Amino acid sequence: MRVRAVVAYDGTNYQGFQRQTNGPTVQEVLERALERVTGERISILAAGRTDTGVHAEGQVIAFDTEWKHPLTALLRALNAVLPPDVAVREVAPAPPDFHPRYDAISRYYRYTIYNHPVRSPLARWTSFHVAWPLDVAAMQAAADLLVGEHDFAAFGTPPKGENTVRRVLRAGWRSEPPWLYFDIEANAFLYRMVRTLVGTMIRVGLGRLPVEGFREVMVSGDRRRAGPAVPPHGLCLMAVRYPEE
Amino acid sequence: MRVRAVVAYDGTNYQGFQRQTNGPTVQEVLERALERVTGERISILAAGRTDTGVHAEGQVIAFDTEWKHPLTALLRALNAVLPPDVAVREVAPAPPDFHPRYDAISRYYRYTIYNHPVRSPLARWTSFHVAWPLDVAAMQAAADLLVGEHDFAAFGTPPKGENTVRRVLRAGWRSEPPWLYFDIEANAFLYRMVRTLVGTMIRVGLGRLPVEGFREVMVSGDRRRAGPAVPPHGLCLMAVRYPEE
Repeated sequence: MRVRAVVAYDGTNYQGFQRQTNGPTVQEVLERALERVTGERISILAAGRTDTGVHAEGQVIAFDTEWKHPLTALLRALNAVLPPDVAVREVAPAPPDFHPRYDAISRYYRYTIYNHPVRSPLARWTSFHVAWPLDVAAMQAAADLLVGEHDFAAFGTPPKGENTVRRVLRAGWRSEPPWLYFDIEANAFLYRMVRTLVGTMIRVGLGRLPVEGFREVMVSGDRRRAGPAVPPHGLCLMAVRYPEE
Repeated sequence: MRVRAVVAYDGTNYQGFQRQTNGPTVQEVLERALERVTGERISILAAGRTDTGVHAEGQVIAFDTEWKHPLTALLRALNAVLPPDVAVREVAPAPPDFHPRYDAISRYYRYTIYNHPVRSPLARWTSFHVAWPLDVAAMQAAADLLVGEHDFAAFGTPPKGENTVRRVLRAGWRSEPPWLYFDIEANAFLYRMVRTLVGTMIRVGLGRLPVEGFREVMVSGDRRRAGPAVPPHGLCLMAVRYPEE
């Protein structure tokens, strides 16, 4: 039986989602929990490989198991053995050919900025601190340019063999002082794309780059003209969407 | 010169606010930062001693210093040397006899519950996870009983030499699923009072204790009849109020 699951994690202590040699990953932790609960060696598929330090509220995974009990029991058993920084939010049966990455029609990420002269101790793991005032209207004007199908070469690198064109479905800043949220949904993302977009839009918000300059960076396709990527701890994979939803 | 400051901290790694022998405290960290920045040995006064693991957004402290530069420079210097889990939010000159504890007219605490079948990795340091549904209307009916001057002996112990009567100015639950916030403001609190009140109201919310039973516990003054105290990590000292404000 193929199972689809929604997973949340605090990425602080992980070298990203995907299994690798140097350091713990969320994938390893999930596969270890699955083995412990089911007795099977299970490889999981995921919708997206989040970078080191990036969080998730709605990562989607899939795996095959011979589990015979109700799926709610699997959910509870997994959450009982998973460490406190990883949790399975939902499990559901999926078609045998369901692939969380290839079947996804969009990913939705949120970047959180704590915009206040003084840093926040309680928010330090989940937001990026910007001490200077930001012009949110200008940042929104830049975000408006992202919507639609564009070449985002200036803002990231593609997985091997892919081009740099992506379709952004929505991109918007929301201000709830001292918080600033940037929500972006696209069919897919380049590596570091959200963090580089946010870093470049912060330059717009600080008045160092006009909106027209942001457009020129985007059109140039030149990675060196974009702003630096902001740190990973402000970024969270909120949801992955599929056709039937 | 006496200085009044508002301090925020993540209480996770501290044995509470007040200096003591077994383990690091927020007071120690602040006094060390003050010494490093001013070169003076400074003892600070605080509005409230928060328990081990309790957080603060608005603890108020006061101290005397010979600092000759602008106070904004003191604020910046302190935040530069303080660890990431402690920050000074505001500094202001205060009358020489200002005492953050004795002059305070009220303290405002918030307790945060994450009310969802599955625990939340990202919220695990700042909220208490309750997996079962809670009847918020019943909990609010219990909270309504708290407002006014009452003997709260059932819900906590007083500092030595004090009685158990406190004046609650407001007490309310707010539901923003999956979050539940309990905000309470009182002239002062007994030890563990907020956490024991929340633990007892959760029993009401779970249907294990009727609102009338809650009132009986309160009237009884019997600590053994109250619910268990909920854990400290959901609790935050939000603000301390003074007459002139």
